[in-house]
Amino acid sequence: MGSPGALAGSGLLDYKTEKWALLAKKGYQERDLDPQISVITKLKGVSVTQIEELGNRLWDVADFVKPPQGENVFFLVTNFLVTPEQVQDRCPEHPSIPLANCWADEDCPEGETGTHSHGIKTGQCVEFNGTHRTCEIQGWCPVESGTVPIRKPLLVQAENFTLFIKNTVTFSKFNFSKSNALDTWDATYFKRCRYDSRYSPYCPVFRIGDLVAAAGGVFEDLALLGGAVGVRVHWDCDLDAGGSDCRPHYSFQLQERSYNFRTATHWWKASGVEARSLLKLYGIRFDILVTGQAGKFGLIPTTITLGTGAAWLGVITFFCDLLLLYVDEEAHFYWRTKYEEAKAPKVTTNPEQTEPASAPPCMAAQES
Amino acid sequence: MGSPGALAGSGLLDYKTEKWALLAKKGYQERDLDPQISVITKLKGVSVTQIEELGNRLWDVADFVKPPQGENVFFLVTNFLVTPEQVQDRCPEHPSIPLANCWADEDCPEGETGTHSHGIKTGQCVEFNGTHRTCEIQGWCPVESGTVPIRKPLLVQAENFTLFIKNTVTFSKFNFSKSNALDTWDATYFKRCRYDSRYSPYCPVFRIGDLVAAAGGVFEDLALLGGAVGVRVHWDCDLDAGGSDCRPHYSFQLQERSYNFRTATHWWKASGVEARSLLKLYGIRFDILVTGQAGKFGLIPTTITLGTGAAWLGVITFFCDLLLLYVDEEAHFYWRTKYEEAKAPKVTTNPEQTEPASAPPCMAAQES
Amino acid sequence: MGSPGALAGSGLLDYKTEKWALLAKKGYQERDLDPQISVITKLKGVSVTQIEELGNRLWDVADFVKPPQGENVFFLVTNFLVTPEQVQDRCPEHPSIPLANCWADEDCPEGETGTHSHGIKTGQCVEFNGTHRTCEIQGWCPVESGTVPIRKPLLVQAENFTLFIKNTVTFSKFNFSKSNALDTWDATYFKRCRYDSRYSPYCPVFRIGDLVAAAGGVFEDLALLGGAVGVRVHWDCDLDAGGSDCRPHYSFQLQERSYNFRTATHWWKASGVEARSLLKLYGIRFDILVTGQAGKFGLIPTTITLGTGAAWLGVITFFCDLLLLYVDEEAHFYWRTKYEEAKAPKVTTNPEQTEPASAPPCMAAQES
Repeated sequence: MGSPGALAGSGLLDYKTEKWALLAKKGYQERDLDPQISVITKLKGVSVTQIEELGNRLWDVADFVKPPQGENVFFLVTNFLVTPEQVQDRCPEHPSIPLANCWADEDCPEGETGTHSHGIKTGQCVEFNGTHRTCEIQGWCPVESGTVPIRKPLLVQAENFTLFIKNTVTFSKFNFSKSNALDTWDATYFKRCRYDSRYSPYCPVFRIGDLVAAAGGVFEDLALLGGAVGVRVHWDCDLDAGGSDCRPHYSFQLQERSYNFRTATHWWKASGVEARSLLKLYGIRFDILVTGQAGKFGLIPTTITLGTGAAWLGVITFFCDLLLLYVDEEAHFYWRTKYEEAKAPKVTTNPEQTEPASAPPCMAAQES
Repeated sequence: MGSPGALAGSGLLDYKTEKWALLAKKGYQERDLDPQISVITKLKGVSVTQIEELGNRLWDVADFVKPPQGENVFFLVTNFLVTPEQVQDRCPEHPSIPLANCWADEDCPEGETGTHSHGIKTGQCVEFNGTHRTCEIQGWCPVESGTVPIRKPLLVQAENFTLFIKNTVTFSKFNFSKSNALDTWDATYFKRCRYDSRYSPYCPVFRIGDLVAAAGGVFEDLALLGGAVGVRVHWDCDLDAGGSDCRPHYSFQLQERSYNFRTATHWWKASGVEARSLLKLYGIRFDILVTGQAGKFGLIPTTITLGTGAAWLGVITFFCDLLLLYVDEEAHFYWRTKYEEAKAPKVTTNPEQTEPASAPPCMAAQES
Repeated sequence: MGSPGALAGSGLLDYKTEKWALLAKKGYQERDLDPQISVITKLKGVSVTQIEELGNRLWDVADFVKPPQGENVFFLVTNFLVTPEQVQDRCPEHPSIPLANCWADEDCPEGETGTHSHGIKTGQCVEFNGTHRTCEIQGWCPVESGTVPIRKPLLVQAENFTLFIKNTVTFSKFNFSKSNALDTWDATYFKRCRYDSRYSPYCPVFRIGDLVAAAGGVFEDLALLGGAVGVRVHWDCDLDAGGSDCRPHYSFQLQERSYNFRTATHWWKASGVEARSLLKLYGIRFDILVTGQAGKFGLIPTTITLGTGAAWLGVITFFCDLLLLYVDEEAHFYWRTKYEEAKAPKVTTNPEQTEPASAPPCMAAQES
């Protein structure tokens, strides 16, 4: 009688799929996949740098967070390379720039410029230092040195800075709103607490060093040459349970190693000449991404999920029939028992249309 | 014969679900849920502040919008606390900082620093004012006063500023694009008009005060201590109707109360010493989020939606059968009428396999 | 016997839909629609402007990219209008401002201000130039000239700048990560290469001029009055194929024509008065949007897709039945053959309930 084992297996699979969809994927719930999200960030901490020409200098949050607005993407400066007091002038190009090196003026076509050059060639080949001759350019002079940053990041104490992430999600479909920060009257709570997924899940204050480590990075490396770290806050809320288990889940990823950009501050010198300090800033970019979904029991999703799964009942019937009618050795007997030829009294002139096999799409319809 | 009422109810439910999915959720339409979105914002307005040391001072958009680029997230300064002319020096820490208060030098370990401190402790305990003694620090001095802002926000006229939101959505799947701004030749239209959902839905110029009120906030409160307001622009376009009803729907939410950040402007004093003005800025952050979807009739979605719903036909058959065969008092009669024992001529040696009850997964298949 | 053609057609459609869903939409795959995305941008290039009062002046990336952080949205300055050395003072309003023009002091109510005005009216009507008289205002003086920018954009060489887009996607569900940049040891590769979808798909370095042209814009026009260009990077990864075809697809859209904003740099004049340079910046905003999805074979999605499609088997049975039983001219004969009246021995007192037509929801259940 064929192998009912396979069919039973398929039946179990069917049941599991259905259960799966209904329970594991909460197919009985209406879902809000598109919450309104608000994120405010705040960094705290100070760091001292010892630079020869500047002496001991303290850096605070107004100096090392860019932009300062407390948005969900921001950059924490941990290292930098300064080219102070540049003015618009003529000077030798840096040897590391393509086509900068020269032997004679003919190597430096006047007016030429490249994507990576620091200015427009003047047509002169001049001495850069004892060992290199390069084309003279017109631009911000002197040019950036191109040195790789020193071994130790300048703002190494940034490891102890703290990041406060204030995040609110609102599921407008269910009129439900929740914050990731403890709703407390204790004004000093967020000054003292540190995040711990078990003991203080509602204290969203993270030490930068811990955060980088959780992302799989080494703070000293990232601080030296820069990097990008992603912080994901995920809310998965089952509002049937009253929303009490609706809490944020944090995860951290190291997105990029090596990250820097240039910026400049401009001023006018006493002589009336415009000058600028060019800063090449290395640091860690934090990218806070909040996602969320909430579900609540709904009649219509339940109906639809059950309906989709129910289709399998029909398929199993169909395959069981197929097995009995065609595969089994007693198929002929079942065929005769199942299909009784339904001959209309006067259609004998066109008999082949009444044969089941002649109209395959309707075969199943001719069960009688 | 059981209660056909329940079944009829279930049948109606089935029909309604299907109709629901097909009409209410427009299951017959192909959908583009991922439009290309472009947002440009522009604030307009001026405000006067009367500050003792500065005299009457006028603020315009270049002063109070940060960042100025016209992005979808921006901050409107409405209040601030200035700490002018800070230089790198030694001075007493502010008493509100943890571990800042001291009786003697022993309370101030040299080199110690905390997350909230303004600098590195020098090891001295000095007088802060007549009533407090605090540890001396090395950092930007003098330290910020920590005063709460005065009663009245400084830029109270910001209530009358206007926000222009220019938004374009493109549903590339249907090659359809639309803007939220009236396509007019009248150059002064957007200087005069104000948004009104009924009378001027294509004039996306909002008065800040109205916008904050629509979000459920009180402008004076938000302006004093800051806040965050979300503006949602939603496009739900039925392109079968020719796109004429495809218009933006605006909604406003108060996301956060209390919002501020610090920023500084640096300069060199005549003496060659670097100085900075530290600004603690309070204001309203606007976060403009655009979402959209468009639908157009498609054969395949229609087929799939009908198909999913159709599964219920099979389920109802199954439950009606179940009712008649097992629950009804005349069940035995129906059982016999429906199931005719299909015995293969020579399988009498293994009779139990032909019993319906012995192969549950195939039971339905043995209808004959 | 009716028209089996239509039914056969419907059967084919059914099969195609199912195939469609299973193959074209990869219904047999589990999908990750929500990858972690990291974008870093870097512009390179220099440009010279010839402005009378400033002489030849070179602009580099620290001057014309705002914000400089290398985020996914940034603004490339291509043109500007400077109002240098504004101070807080009294001066005539610009005639283009609504209600600025006046004949006498009575036209200028003291203290009045409008959304578009540059300051607060002092109550005086003064001469603006030889042809206009306007209300005097208190504000940043002199006011911006309101001139449209000159014919040729100032930073026309921006066309040759290059944009490097470094993008990494991580499909955490499948533990798969990929970058759009060639993983090479050749330090100079990204200095030399240019993107080409066929020959160098892993060199994400784009010439600005080409990029604007691909978006359907004319560089000179956008550079003059500004604009916004969207860059979309889409990843559609079939990880069953080992991820080798998982590569970024770039597309470009011109989102807006005309885009500008104002910003200012402040300083203190020798006299101790605060001054600012007001800049109206025109340029091109780039908005880099990364989307992605990945799929991998999964048993459960396959089961569900097949299940949904399977529903159609039941529907076809139902419609074939309907056709034979009601539409066909021999319907009465099939009716009798299919439905054998199942009379319970003792229910003759309530005969109408046993009639098939009397209980429509269960009609299908009474097949016998």
